[in-house]
Amino acid sequence: LVGIVMGSESDMPAMEKAAAELNRRGIANEIRVMSAHRNPDTVAEYAKTAQARGLKVLIAGAGLAAALPGAVAAHTELPVIGVPLTSKTSVAGGLDALLAIAQMPPGVPVACVGVDNARNAAVLAARIIGA
Amino acid sequence: LVGIVMGSESDMPAMEKAAAELNRRGIANEIRVMSAHRNPDTVAEYAKTAQARGLKVLIAGAGLAAALPGAVAAHTELPVIGVPLTSKTSVAGGLDALLAIAQMPPGVPVACVGVDNARNAAVLAARIIGA
Amino acid sequence: LVGIVMGSESDMPAMEKAAAELNRRGIANEIRVMSAHRNPDTVAEYAKTAQARGLKVLIAGAGLAAALPGAVAAHTELPVIGVPLTSKTSVAGGLDALLAIAQMPPGVPVACVGVDNARNAAVLAARIIGA
Amino acid sequence: LVGIVMGSESDMPAMEKAAAELNRRGIANEIRVMSAHRNPDTVAEYAKTAQARGLKVLIAGAGLAAALPGAVAAHTELPVIGVPLTSKTSVAGGLDALLAIAQMPPGVPVACVGVDNARNAAVLAARIIGA
Amino acid sequence: LVGIVMGSESDMPAMEKAAAELNRRGIANEIRVMSAHRNPDTVAEYAKTAQARGLKVLIAGAGLAAALPGAVAAHTELPVIGVPLTSKTSVAGGLDALLAIAQMPPGVPVACVGVDNARNAAVLAARIIGA
Amino acid sequence: LVGIVMGSESDMPAMEKAAAELNRRGIANEIRVMSAHRNPDTVAEYAKTAQARGLKVLIAGAGLAAALPGAVAAHTELPVIGVPLTSKTSVAGGLDALLAIAQMPPGVPVACVGVDNARNAAVLAARIIGA
Amino acid sequence: LVGIVMGSESDMPAMEKAAAELNRRGIANEIRVMSAHRNPDTVAEYAKTAQARGLKVLIAGAGLAAALPGAVAAHTELPVIGVPLTSKTSVAGGLDALLAIAQMPPGVPVACVGVDNARNAAVLAARIIGA
Amino acid sequence: LVGIVMGSESDMPAMEKAAAELNRRGIANEIRVMSAHRNPDTVAEYAKTAQARGLKVLIAGAGLAAALPGAVAAHTELPVIGVPLTSKTSVAGGLDALLAIAQMPPGVPVACVGVDNARNAAVLAARIIGA
Repeated sequence: LVGIVMGSESDMPAMEKAAAELNRRGIANEIRVMSAHRNPDTVAEYAKTAQARGLKVLIAGAGLAAALPGAVAAHTELPVIGVPLTSKTSVAGGLDALLAIAQMPPGVPVACVGVDNARNAAVLAARIIGA
Repeated sequence: LVGIVMGSESDMPAMEKAAAELNRRGIANEIRVMSAHRNPDTVAEYAKTAQARGLKVLIAGAGLAAALPGAVAAHTELPVIGVPLTSKTSVAGGLDALLAIAQMPPGVPVACVGVDNARNAAVLAARIIGA
Repeated sequence: LVGIVMGSESDMPAMEKAAAELNRRGIANEIRVMSAHRNPDTVAEYAKTAQARGLKVLIAGAGLAAALPGAVAAHTELPVIGVPLTSKTSVAGGLDALLAIAQMPPGVPVACVGVDNARNAAVLAARIIGA
Repeated sequence: LVGIVMGSESDMPAMEKAAAELNRRGIANEIRVMSAHRNPDTVAEYAKTAQARGLKVLIAGAGLAAALPGAVAAHTELPVIGVPLTSKTSVAGGLDALLAIAQMPPGVPVACVGVDNARNAAVLAARIIGA
Repeated sequence: LVGIVMGSESDMPAMEKAAAELNRRGIANEIRVMSAHRNPDTVAEYAKTAQARGLKVLIAGAGLAAALPGAVAAHTELPVIGVPLTSKTSVAGGLDALLAIAQMPPGVPVACVGVDNARNAAVLAARIIGA
Repeated sequence: LVGIVMGSESDMPAMEKAAAELNRRGIANEIRVMSAHRNPDTVAEYAKTAQARGLKVLIAGAGLAAALPGAVAAHTELPVIGVPLTSKTSVAGGLDALLAIAQMPPGVPVACVGVDNARNAAVLAARIIGA
Repeated sequence: LVGIVMGSESDMPAMEKAAAELNRRGIANEIRVMSAHRNPDTVAEYAKTAQARGLKVLIAGAGLAAALPGAVAAHTELPVIGVPLTSKTSVAGGLDALLAIAQMPPGVPVACVGVDNARNAAVLAARIIGA
Repeated sequence: LVGIVMGSESDMPAMEKAAAELNRRGIANEIRVMSAHRNPDTVAEYAKTAQARGLKVLIAGAGLAAALPGAVAAHTELPVIGVPLTSKTSVAGGLDALLAIAQMPPGVPVACVGVDNARNAAVLAARIIGA
């Protein structure tokens, strides 16, 4: 029901918390690693087919320029939740990723949650599915 | 189907764009003005009864300390979308409101969209309803 | 005389310094853990009954979106002191909490002190009680 | 009962709102212009004699380096409320003054309110007097 | 020789300065409007075919989440220059776009120039072509 | 010839580098600990008598609200160099102290150097003495 | 006695205030326009010969990357005062220029004053000359 | 073909990643340590002769005021890539260096990449050489 994507294997420890929270609530989910910048066609394909494959909500975690949530949102009509992640080269404690995810242009929103707060992305996904 | 709340009458010009977008898409909506800090009981009551009244998504716009989206989310299981608003006394172009809405604690997420981007909140609400 | 509240058990090491300072000055105080977002009704109840229970000043510590001080101030006429706290996912060294506590809307002020500076909150409370 | 000070005549339009709010509530107040950097001895004298002259709370507004609230607090045991003010050369919408007022060292707190929010300083003063 | 793209017609006044500078230097160029989020397939197609069509450098201007430069860079081996643009809802004077363009992940760089500085993007393109 | 002051004993490791640099250059200097907020009269006295005691330049290090350099400059006509210091509760890596020291009001300048860069304060003092 | 330099003719209105203040105090001064990036050799020549030409202090105003004060300081042993200037494309109200001027590397200090505060640069120069 | 410069020996671990990436791609490169502020004439000489010595692209890494990339760009027509580096005294996680490198004045661009992302500077250099 929920697809979880992230830009790099190194994001896994942060993003697994989303899967753990969904599992705790009994909500089926899948995890994929794909980069908006290194695998753009994979991302486009994943997002375009997500709805047909039965997914209801997508969660995308990314750091730095954090384009993944927006790239996913560009290719689907499903609600997309973005998780800003920190890394060793983050500016101002992840402010870079937070702004990149929240400040989307008109018409293509991403639902931004807190920095490194993948669990909250899962809780939000659960609220959306229940809505 | 969608409840739109804001903290002050002065937020109306910014938040009406959410209603306009929902109307364009034929999605029923209502607008209310209530402050998390000046009318906390009204906010609690509104949020607690929202689901029973048939609402599926709540949109809350607020500036500065921007507590309204989180206050609403604290009293409902519906998905809550937060719109950071700017005002004459905003810090760093609305960074204060954006951080206050996005950086929610574990367990009570708000879906933060871009600064003054109420239209995107409506588009996100439409995606959630369609999910 | 002084009520000290915080959003999470994990805030205790930071906020205990306020109690220690008050104890050093011989000012009676109590400590409670309650979250503005996870226990909003408890917070409202606590704040509404604080004055009748003999409290003169309230100190509230919170991190991230840091809504607790404002939520307390919304339900009482007592002066409320807010302490911005840092955590692992703070943005810009606690700037998020500091802005969320200081930038309150017209009519419902919070007295914001420095980041992680619970001791100063206690000193300020002592000044207020002595005024 | 309440002393209102500010660093420059140009701060008067912003700080008069504190006096107006106090007047509305029937709380006696006085306004003085004195700079922490250009008239430090005047500030010290004013703060040292404030309590003896019957004042209960001091409100100090300042912009940029915004040392006035702290300078006042250094010379009195009264509670001091600081109002960060913006000017043409403020950084990040008044973030400079807000940090300078909130981030006080251990032992000498200032109660910081929102940027350009002198009215809230008055409301906080009223709460303190009523406490 | 140089392709100039931007996310919205409203970016044209800012980005035309890049074309003007290139024209002044006698460097052939073309301008296209395409959004990374609203027209992702157009962007992918444009970037993938740019080299075969004889382009040597791409300049991409974008504001807010500013994903366009990175999206272009993801689909081509040509050097991509990104211009962070300001708009009415920018945070901190365009800091959002600047961070989104500069903070690219390993392997897919964008050459970020200054905020609203499309002319410098053209000068940089001229240096690259001359290199 | 050079007076070095700081707000707290905990600033000594950072500020001793100024003394070390001056010693290396054979420039006489003295070090004092005094807080602008906890010992304001000591600071005023020190600054007022500095010139008569033969000092040519004053270096003041402070963190957080960092009022010491400005407080010194308010009481002397000597050039004052300010060193923004970091501490555990600094915001944005010392941005708070840097703004508090640099953003002085008209007529009372402080020469601000880099964060934790006491050595450069000494080099600047040497340049001033040699001028 | 005091040399005033700035990176662009457009900085003249801001920097003339330094000359006006020096004239008011009867301190001889000269104004030159030269860019650290467009006329680096002119800057180097000016700085290298300044002391021999009888100058005691140099004031350099610059915006954005604001390299001029540091470039001047690299070529002279005279004390150099830097004035961060704002322009239409400044980030966060001139924070870019302020950081670029204050955060100098070990051994080559610049005395940074407040944003757009050329008058204070002149007052500081007067203090230095009087020292 | 590619010249790599940095302001200090302490930048070597960060900047060697650029050389490693170029070596992996078989692109000849050289590394030099020279400071824009401590060795300005060396920097000018290096940049002025770079093209004649067969270099096609220059990569310059620097922290804090980060003037090196701009200083290099001022003395050559070659494309210059700037790498903002962090150090113990960086503000906001390297935001100081990032702004100093990206916010160049009209006519003298630097291609800024991400904080501490020297590898991406090398990839960008490879794209430029291949263009």
